[in-house]
Amino acid sequence: MEKNRLEKQIDFILEADKEKNIFRQTHLTGNGRRENDAEHAWHMAMMVYLLKEYANEEIDVAKAMFMALIHDIVEIDAGDTYAYDEKGHETKKMREDVAAERIFSLLPEDQGEELKSLFQEYEATETPEARFVRAMDNFQPLLLNNSNNGRDWKEHEIGKKQVMNRHIHTKLGSNIIWECTEKIIEENVRNGNLKDN
Amino acid sequence: MEKNRLEKQIDFILEADKEKNIFRQTHLTGNGRRENDAEHAWHMAMMVYLLKEYANEEIDVAKAMFMALIHDIVEIDAGDTYAYDEKGHETKKMREDVAAERIFSLLPEDQGEELKSLFQEYEATETPEARFVRAMDNFQPLLLNNSNNGRDWKEHEIGKKQVMNRHIHTKLGSNIIWECTEKIIEENVRNGNLKDN
Repeated sequence: MEKNRLEKQIDFILEADKEKNIFRQTHLTGNGRRENDAEHAWHMAMMVYLLKEYANEEIDVAKAMFMALIHDIVEIDAGDTYAYDEKGHETKKMREDVAAERIFSLLPEDQGEELKSLFQEYEATETPEARFVRAMDNFQPLLLNNSNNGRDWKEHEIGKKQVMNRHIHTKLGSNIIWECTEKIIEENVRNGNLKDN
Repeated sequence: MEKNRLEKQIDFILEADKEKNIFRQTHLTGNGRRENDAEHAWHMAMMVYLLKEYANEEIDVAKAMFMALIHDIVEIDAGDTYAYDEKGHETKKMREDVAAERIFSLLPEDQGEELKSLFQEYEATETPEARFVRAMDNFQPLLLNNSNNGRDWKEHEIGKKQVMNRHIHTKLGSNIIWECTEKIIEENVRNGNLKDN
């Protein structure tokens, strides 16, 4: 017997639970343990709402928050690819597209399509919502890492150039958050937390 | 020197990080570890969006999602009070009000007031958004617990009457989610996961 609409939605909700077991490289404040994808997405969605006044363009807040909540869900199958893992990034798109196909098809068809399209919109980073959510995706680990005196950068021997390359996209979503990002990066270079390369 | 607006918002965002260390009684799917407040709130906010079609009344989705994201933030100071801990519930409101005062005052005044009012609105459960978010606050751990064959109920020797008393408020937010809740509870009584008292 085919599952009804709510049963399919529940299947997806329970599948999403697995994001709580996907761990990132970022550590929690207070030099805590590593953060998982669900916690990261929760923090980002909260930041979308709290910092929306700094978006360069007007955004649909509910859409942007939901985009933040689900932006990493493909990592249930594809795993987390560290921001500075060049080799991992070569296969990232392929692994994540296969995962998106499987995971979103758990939902009723209309919702599955909606989420797939929202995920693709995020990846393309061409709409105001995607750009602002991307800025939060960069800014959130920066804040945690800065609060831990750049621990994650030090452990991975990351230099200023790599961090700037990653964070430069923040500017597309928010000039003000980008200015704050630059200030934090410069401080960490001065303090020796980030190699000045 | 007084902090500027963005600095205050960042202080709040970093304070909120501590929610990732507040653990609940609910276990993750697959008989995983206990869930923390940030993960629970992430899951709830996602459910608000995915299940909004079942809300009894029309809701402001962004507002309801944000309410879900912050509804437990006072537990940073006040700790988690288990749903069936009667003694804990006697002092819950007082402990949480003190916490709300401290935590929300980290924000710029206008946002601090907005969040305090949103938190109070949630607690009062009298608006369409608060009622639907409350329904998600009940339904989310029910789904996890059901997926683990009622493990949390069994560990705490919880009976049907207690569960019904807690979940009855789900009906105010969504009749359809309430029907599904009743079905899940009855199944767990039949399977012996929940005492039939």
